Amino acid sequence: MALIVQKYGGTSVGNPERIRNCARRILETQRAGHQVVAVVSAMSGVTDNLIRLAKEVSLEQDPSEREMDVLLSTGEQTTIALTAMAINALGGKAVSLTGAQAGISTDRMHTKARIVNITPDAVHKMLDEGNIVMLAGFQGETASGEITTLGRGGSDLTAIAMAAAIKADLCQIYTDVDGVYTCDPRVVKCATKIEEISYDEMLEMASSGSKVMQSRSVEFAKKFGVRFEVRSSLNNNPGTLVKEETPGMESVVVRGVSLERNQAKITIDDVPDRPGISSVIFGAIAGANIMIDMIVQNVSFDGETDISFTLSAADLPKAEKALREILSTLGDKVTLRTESGVAKLSVVGIGMRSHSGVAAKMFKALADVSVNILMISTSEIKTAVIVQEADIENASRAVHTAFGLDAA
Amino acid sequence: MALIVQKYGGTSVGNPERIRNCARRILETQRAGHQVVAVVSAMSGVTDNLIRLAKEVSLEQDPSEREMDVLLSTGEQTTIALTAMAINALGGKAVSLTGAQAGISTDRMHTKARIVNITPDAVHKMLDEGNIVMLAGFQGETASGEITTLGRGGSDLTAIAMAAAIKADLCQIYTDVDGVYTCDPRVVKCATKIEEISYDEMLEMASSGSKVMQSRSVEFAKKFGVRFEVRSSLNNNPGTLVKEETPGMESVVVRGVSLERNQAKITIDDVPDRPGISSVIFGAIAGANIMIDMIVQNVSFDGETDISFTLSAADLPKAEKALREILSTLGDKVTLRTESGVAKLSVVGIGMRSHSGVAAKMFKALADVSVNILMISTSEIKTAVIVQEADIENASRAVHTAFGLDAA
Repeated sequence: MALIVQKYGGTSVGNPERIRNCARRILETQRAGHQVVAVVSAMSGVTDNLIRLAKEVSLEQDPSEREMDVLLSTGEQTTIALTAMAINALGGKAVSLTGAQAGISTDRMHTKARIVNITPDAVHKMLDEGNIVMLAGFQGETASGEITTLGRGGSDLTAIAMAAAIKADLCQIYTDVDGVYTCDPRVVKCATKIEEISYDEMLEMASSGSKVMQSRSVEFAKKFGVRFEVRSSLNNNPGTLVKEETPGMESVVVRGVSLERNQAKITIDDVPDRPGISSVIFGAIAGANIMIDMIVQNVSFDGETDISFTLSAADLPKAEKALREILSTLGDKVTLRTESGVAKLSVVGIGMRSHSGVAAKMFKALADVSVNILMISTSEIKTAVIVQEADIENASRAVHTAFGLDAA
Repeated sequence: MALIVQKYGGTSVGNPERIRNCARRILETQRAGHQVVAVVSAMSGVTDNLIRLAKEVSLEQDPSEREMDVLLSTGEQTTIALTAMAINALGGKAVSLTGAQAGISTDRMHTKARIVNITPDAVHKMLDEGNIVMLAGFQGETASGEITTLGRGGSDLTAIAMAAAIKADLCQIYTDVDGVYTCDPRVVKCATKIEEISYDEMLEMASSGSKVMQSRSVEFAKKFGVRFEVRSSLNNNPGTLVKEETPGMESVVVRGVSLERNQAKITIDDVPDRPGISSVIFGAIAGANIMIDMIVQNVSFDGETDISFTLSAADLPKAEKALREILSTLGDKVTLRTESGVAKLSVVGIGMRSHSGVAAKMFKALADVSVNILMISTSEIKTAVIVQEADIENASRAVHTAFGLDAA
């Protein structure tokens, strides 16, 4: 008998029929001889509808975050009750628990709270009585009893944190894809499902555009050593196991290829090469609440340098405005160039640590299909380039083939 | 400064615009210098929608009552958050509390729990900090932390019970009618709004077809001496104050006239007049889970008697079936007669205790308009008759006039 935590996303519980399907899968897991805690999200569309209502009653002002949490947490509460009913109707025995009832304690950062502690007594008690526990994802409670929510990807986090707290043998994240792929199969037809991936690779893939899971949940899993499997709720295929590194993993140089569209590039030319300049530039960007991605600074020439960085194309106007305001303080000759319509291509793999020539191989593959590289950035287990968005699909296919990732 | 509890029903918070209207009214009450706790129901339609979902996932089986409570309580939780947001958007300061957060403890009778205790510390704290408290109606929590709901009329009960617990100066029940009327204004055009009514009169009116409030909430108010006002959320007219009896109240003989349609009458003829017979008959009815209303037994003649009683017409087939099964055990000659298409007309007033001739006056008024009386039943403060349903409107108008209730 194993203790298994499963998580079903909003699409998997999007209507009564799908809820019944999930109920069937959960019950089958229990009937195979296991104890099951199943975490569910709000039914797809429900959260958006609640947000729309909140905007309407608030006359487009930002509603209080405390009240947003009271409101949004009803979405998951609805799903746990309905799924428990569906399991009971199939002859199973299920009880639902809200985040608060399940002992999930968070800090007071409404709408993006962090889990500080889990006291899973109620979960253990319900399991011991032979129940399937339906647990509301995405929510918790502060020490003073206020309802909180965990922000984007919160239900994944609930599943992984609860798996850690109850020392589950397995944590399964059910989603609408079969697992993590070597590249987006819509772009690279011969992409294959990855059987095993390390936490660090998964993190790099997530931050490079492979949006299977939020980084936060993967980081939590890494920190507490929770192995989890990403798999589809639509079939019974095995998914991708995300786990600690094992020696064998390094034999694969590149685990996967990520692509991220809708990027933009900003270059500041002829910046005086003196201490503190970067801090002025990126302070202005941070002050405008903009996330940036790659930063590249070229070598100094005649006491001047060029700084380039990338960001989401949606943030470009805001960033340009913030920079224009401080540009004159940087120096007389400083100029600003922006370019949208670019995309990022990354190859990720812990094998890079022990294999040389990854970058060279990647650049040659791109050159062979005449893709021009606009920027380069590397980390220990990732090599990323910026290319024209028009080139990204060709580039992805070429790199995928070059690293031997194409399906046999 | 007064401490005021207000309650808004599902129609009053039925859409974002109406929620904003309630928010405005609540905020005006606070700005007039008062402390306000506002109890709200689920937005109209929401509860029905949740019940439909529950049926769908349960494949038409009865869902677990524990899970129904988890599900249905989300309706009120949604409304408290939205109303608090609406108040905040208007420049006010509001916080929402679920039943559990507000310290409403109930027994474990899911879907029809009783309030056993209220610990209003959180409510007092929020009020002391200058907040309007938006309190979820209809729900509470058991000692072991399970979510419960209070059954029909539960939000009224929440308001009245919280008013008692925090020793509110006033409890206002906002609804879609202007108050309690001397008769249904759709039937008696010249019916007038009653300014003050005693708890007992309100209870008799409620149990006689005037469905402004469930009896349970009125009984609770009577037990704890909570005065409350039934008034409209659509205008600023004063409503009806429901309160303890005062000496002056007895000067009005009849406070109001109630009518209840869709009744049925069952008569069992030639029943042997011996002990235990009634218990067999009404035991069978109770066993079929049927509520009965008036019971009349005629005088015995030759050792045999007739027993008649009334019930909702919808329950007639079930009642007839239950009685046919035990009929032969009652005696050889016993026969059963049923009659649907009848209605009940009641006059209610604590003045009846000290005024004679109420029944005679009522019967004369009915005779004058040629309405035949099928059954009569009286209590200390009520006289009720059964008439043909076709006669009920004429009968109501005649009696309303006879007791001087018509608007001047």
